[in-house]
Amino acid sequence: MLIVMERSATQAHIAAVVDTVKRLGLTPQPIPGGNRVAIGVLGNQGYVDEEPFRDLPGIQELIHVTKPYKLVSRDFHPADSAIGVGEVFVGWGLEPVVIAGPCTVESREQVLETARAVKAAGARILRGGAFKPRTGPHSFQGLGYEGLEYLAEAGRAAGLPIVTEVMRIDQVEPVAAVADCLQVGARNMQNFDLLKEVGRIGKPVLLKRGISATLEEFLAAAEYILLEGNDQVILCERGIRTFERALRNTLDLGVVPFLRQVTHLPVIVDPSHALGRRDLVAPMAKAAVVVGAAGVMVEVHPDPTHALCDGPQSLDPEAFARLMRELRATSRTES
Amino acid sequence: MLIVMERSATQAHIAAVVDTVKRLGLTPQPIPGGNRVAIGVLGNQGYVDEEPFRDLPGIQELIHVTKPYKLVSRDFHPADSAIGVGEVFVGWGLEPVVIAGPCTVESREQVLETARAVKAAGARILRGGAFKPRTGPHSFQGLGYEGLEYLAEAGRAAGLPIVTEVMRIDQVEPVAAVADCLQVGARNMQNFDLLKEVGRIGKPVLLKRGISATLEEFLAAAEYILLEGNDQVILCERGIRTFERALRNTLDLGVVPFLRQVTHLPVIVDPSHALGRRDLVAPMAKAAVVVGAAGVMVEVHPDPTHALCDGPQSLDPEAFARLMRELRATSRTES
Amino acid sequence: MLIVMERSATQAHIAAVVDTVKRLGLTPQPIPGGNRVAIGVLGNQGYVDEEPFRDLPGIQELIHVTKPYKLVSRDFHPADSAIGVGEVFVGWGLEPVVIAGPCTVESREQVLETARAVKAAGARILRGGAFKPRTGPHSFQGLGYEGLEYLAEAGRAAGLPIVTEVMRIDQVEPVAAVADCLQVGARNMQNFDLLKEVGRIGKPVLLKRGISATLEEFLAAAEYILLEGNDQVILCERGIRTFERALRNTLDLGVVPFLRQVTHLPVIVDPSHALGRRDLVAPMAKAAVVVGAAGVMVEVHPDPTHALCDGPQSLDPEAFARLMRELRATSRTES
Amino acid sequence: MLIVMERSATQAHIAAVVDTVKRLGLTPQPIPGGNRVAIGVLGNQGYVDEEPFRDLPGIQELIHVTKPYKLVSRDFHPADSAIGVGEVFVGWGLEPVVIAGPCTVESREQVLETARAVKAAGARILRGGAFKPRTGPHSFQGLGYEGLEYLAEAGRAAGLPIVTEVMRIDQVEPVAAVADCLQVGARNMQNFDLLKEVGRIGKPVLLKRGISATLEEFLAAAEYILLEGNDQVILCERGIRTFERALRNTLDLGVVPFLRQVTHLPVIVDPSHALGRRDLVAPMAKAAVVVGAAGVMVEVHPDPTHALCDGPQSLDPEAFARLMRELRATSRTES
Repeated sequence: MLIVMERSATQAHIAAVVDTVKRLGLTPQPIPGGNRVAIGVLGNQGYVDEEPFRDLPGIQELIHVTKPYKLVSRDFHPADSAIGVGEVFVGWGLEPVVIAGPCTVESREQVLETARAVKAAGARILRGGAFKPRTGPHSFQGLGYEGLEYLAEAGRAAGLPIVTEVMRIDQVEPVAAVADCLQVGARNMQNFDLLKEVGRIGKPVLLKRGISATLEEFLAAAEYILLEGNDQVILCERGIRTFERALRNTLDLGVVPFLRQVTHLPVIVDPSHALGRRDLVAPMAKAAVVVGAAGVMVEVHPDPTHALCDGPQSLDPEAFARLMRELRATSRTES
Repeated sequence: MLIVMERSATQAHIAAVVDTVKRLGLTPQPIPGGNRVAIGVLGNQGYVDEEPFRDLPGIQELIHVTKPYKLVSRDFHPADSAIGVGEVFVGWGLEPVVIAGPCTVESREQVLETARAVKAAGARILRGGAFKPRTGPHSFQGLGYEGLEYLAEAGRAAGLPIVTEVMRIDQVEPVAAVADCLQVGARNMQNFDLLKEVGRIGKPVLLKRGISATLEEFLAAAEYILLEGNDQVILCERGIRTFERALRNTLDLGVVPFLRQVTHLPVIVDPSHALGRRDLVAPMAKAAVVVGAAGVMVEVHPDPTHALCDGPQSLDPEAFARLMRELRATSRTES
Repeated sequence: MLIVMERSATQAHIAAVVDTVKRLGLTPQPIPGGNRVAIGVLGNQGYVDEEPFRDLPGIQELIHVTKPYKLVSRDFHPADSAIGVGEVFVGWGLEPVVIAGPCTVESREQVLETARAVKAAGARILRGGAFKPRTGPHSFQGLGYEGLEYLAEAGRAAGLPIVTEVMRIDQVEPVAAVADCLQVGARNMQNFDLLKEVGRIGKPVLLKRGISATLEEFLAAAEYILLEGNDQVILCERGIRTFERALRNTLDLGVVPFLRQVTHLPVIVDPSHALGRRDLVAPMAKAAVVVGAAGVMVEVHPDPTHALCDGPQSLDPEAFARLMRELRATSRTES
Repeated sequence: MLIVMERSATQAHIAAVVDTVKRLGLTPQPIPGGNRVAIGVLGNQGYVDEEPFRDLPGIQELIHVTKPYKLVSRDFHPADSAIGVGEVFVGWGLEPVVIAGPCTVESREQVLETARAVKAAGARILRGGAFKPRTGPHSFQGLGYEGLEYLAEAGRAAGLPIVTEVMRIDQVEPVAAVADCLQVGARNMQNFDLLKEVGRIGKPVLLKRGISATLEEFLAAAEYILLEGNDQVILCERGIRTFERALRNTLDLGVVPFLRQVTHLPVIVDPSHALGRRDLVAPMAKAAVVVGAAGVMVEVHPDPTHALCDGPQSLDPEAFARLMRELRATSRTES
């Protein structure tokens, strides 16, 4: 950390800062400048807490050099992590994994049919929501555990591992008993108790970026999971909220190559939720592969017009098969 | 809802939309225009779900007229609600209620001392965190149930009702047993299961606006609580995330007079968390009163320099007493 | 336009709205609903001005159906426009055009060398800044007309048409005399007098999206140019400002396929300015091609380490040649 | 500036940075840490340009300590500046100045009537737009120089100094000949040529914050004006663009007390443009006074229902007179 003093800071102000640094067992290094003094803080192994410093008089600014995460960082784990979901591996530089399935499990038939179709087209993981977070309290909220069973059956039938969202702590154990990967949704990215719980359960976790989460917060949220001993985390960019409202969210593809430098954990992209429009899913899915994403997650529904949730962004099986062919061509060129 | 058709929409496209409206038991009202046709949807009592429509061909845009909330709206409940926390009432047009206390309960002494000080200065509700959501996993996370007991004791000693945050469903019941009001934090504003649970428990709820929540989402979140039969909800503006990073967040005071027109539920303002700097708390707290807020929530710590959490934004008892005198003067002028 | 009345609106309120619509020569179409009345406005050929309506009592909301632009829209010009810059055509569905060159013209040699290198690698238009908008007043502000001459000479030498930015009205004529395309920068996207002037001069215009401009504002800015009789406009997405600060801006690639549906004017992408980091330029440039962009604009400098402006985001000629090979492969696959 | 090296930086990387610092005539101060080295840059009198550094290998981050402005800063000019507009002084801690008038000058009568009314109610500066920037090209664009004459006449008749916007360089001289203060609008905050020109003309300037301008950019824009020798600048907060669309913009009142610490230049607040709704103007204007603003700017129109521009946010003379009485009461309490 660098502590920048105000121009008007007195010797006593500087001395108080120096003392505080020492009290924390760290080493202060004053850097006198033309206009003001700065004090470097040396010797810390991790993020330096601001609290003891920020309140001292004469301080203009605290500048962090160390980030609030460590286990997720390439600094401490230079090699790529490959996350195994069933027998499928998701990782930087591996063949991009396509995760597909309905937004919501609506019936046994719907998910069985979708699973077979996406498997035939080349998807390698099946997704489907049993518990649905909905902004409005009157919207369809999912089939719950019944839906989970249908999803598991469809995965077995199609030979695909499954991923599904958990929203509450008491769902973690029963879901982990049947699912190959637990999803934590964007709204729960900072539900820290839930993060700890999925950390303890030891199954792979697909963590979605919050709609207004900085990358630092996103990585710090993943750190919660790794700290519990679970390093099987897949990160998912799914669009952020900006001033632009013509599309649902702004898909932030630039973070994919950036995060590849920062973290060993793989990043996948969900264009369906980000844009909210079917016609934009295919181009953005291909773009995700081009920028190096470890996978893409796409919503597929046998009959999007009658979907109970997010129909307008779902592909039908035929459109999905076409996208898979295009993705394979893109992927071959780029590798 | 208004369904705007594309210029190129055919008669068959229009007929399909008209049929879908009828199938839902609603009345379609085509509005032919110079360039395109629009179809009004009549007869709905609440929010019309987009799903059956958005996917039909030839539709350019769906425009909602009804909002995704009803119980929280002035349309359905014109009179102001006054929310009773202990014997204190929070409501539009009532004397603004000041809620004060430490960010986090750190010890029995700390919260007892703070409670006495804020009571003496004129605060009417005591706040204090027992369970703390922290972005970084290594930060101090609160004393938990022990902290809750200290807070309750301090409230009794000072004669102040207490409000404290719940973060997990299993905390709702035990916290409701001792607290006068349950706080749902900004990060949990869309933790829908938690919202339902605090709705069922029947205690007043202080619901904070999510850091990037639209007002529509904020009100829809409150609707989750009211739908469970609990209409004792206080809304809290606490700053939103914008591009500006010189201050922690942007306190959005304009929403206070706006929400006063839209909802019967009272809105209070938390300047401490929004700005993150002690020196901005007093002016913004007074501004909140001036724009009509039903209350303000202020962090107070007996010794902010040594606070374990959010020290830099906490007032010491003396500064708080000064603020209370200023607030009373402001309040007198404005009423 | 749809005018939604408040639930409490009286017959007199409704009558006043109906009268106002008629006064404007338009046709009111009341749509009675369960909870409130809405009034459709029919017969308008373009955007309906809000002013006469918004101030009438009893109105809850004004909802626009027609957009504030017309000439740029596919509704009125369904076929793709191909914009000719010198002998190069930029348009939806045409081979993507790569525009390359230095951020700023620093010397005759620098721009000559860059022009030859980018031409050899396959770029088809040369860019270079003579007049530079800089946030801080002490930064290098460009060589001015001397730089313009160097750029023109380099374009001729390499056989490449040139594009350069104009910042003031008095620059439009002299720059148009030598440049093949005039760029209007992001900061000037709503400098309406400048837009009109480049509209009158009749040369192709490359219009950059403002850093916080909505797509509606972006298209309305282009409309200013077309209204002067100049329909040779290339739109350029160059990143928007969001809460995320790890990267300079958020490159909003999703707008490319979206705008392709909305406007006949081609959209190109500038990944150099959006991300501000050289290592992200290549992946994002390829992604732009994949989502259908009509071109990409890339900064190239013979010696980025010693560039006077934006060195960190500039490619050296070797890296640019590599990118061109990759773009060709990507482009072949995607077409 | 602090240069943070990567963990993997070699001695050669560090040596290259040290050399570069020396070449610039500055003093490098290496700060060895547990995980990485940082290098302080000492001896600079102003902002250190990033370009020579950012491109060297082994650098993780460049952290600025000095800001890109100096003349506007309290560091270099600790005392408050009082800006004289006619005989009215605008400054921190002085009685708040109310600037009022129509959005646009529509006719001689309209502005004369408004001028008399706002003068009678207590306004001290008259505003009115002769040249209007409009997002859509078909909206009313102002009366131009004819409007300027009406405004000047109305100011003389009412005994009020006048402020009006300049949009182009060629307007600066003729407007400065009759106006007491030149306004630079939000869209032109980074029109650097215009800033320099109003800097040279030597009249007071009212500079509005760009809709997505950071405070650093805002102050750097003002620095452009001061660098030309004109230190008569009034800053104006007028709302920023955020994700929230229920209101036109988010009025960022927290910046007022913050900027008071950072700059000697006074800040005023424009609630009319920020919120876009008449009913929110009064509460937000009073809040601006409470947080210490040096003034407020309010739109007033004799007949808002028939205003050609921004009618819905304009007060009529009676509502304005009421607001003035309230502002005086608020102001008395707060001083």
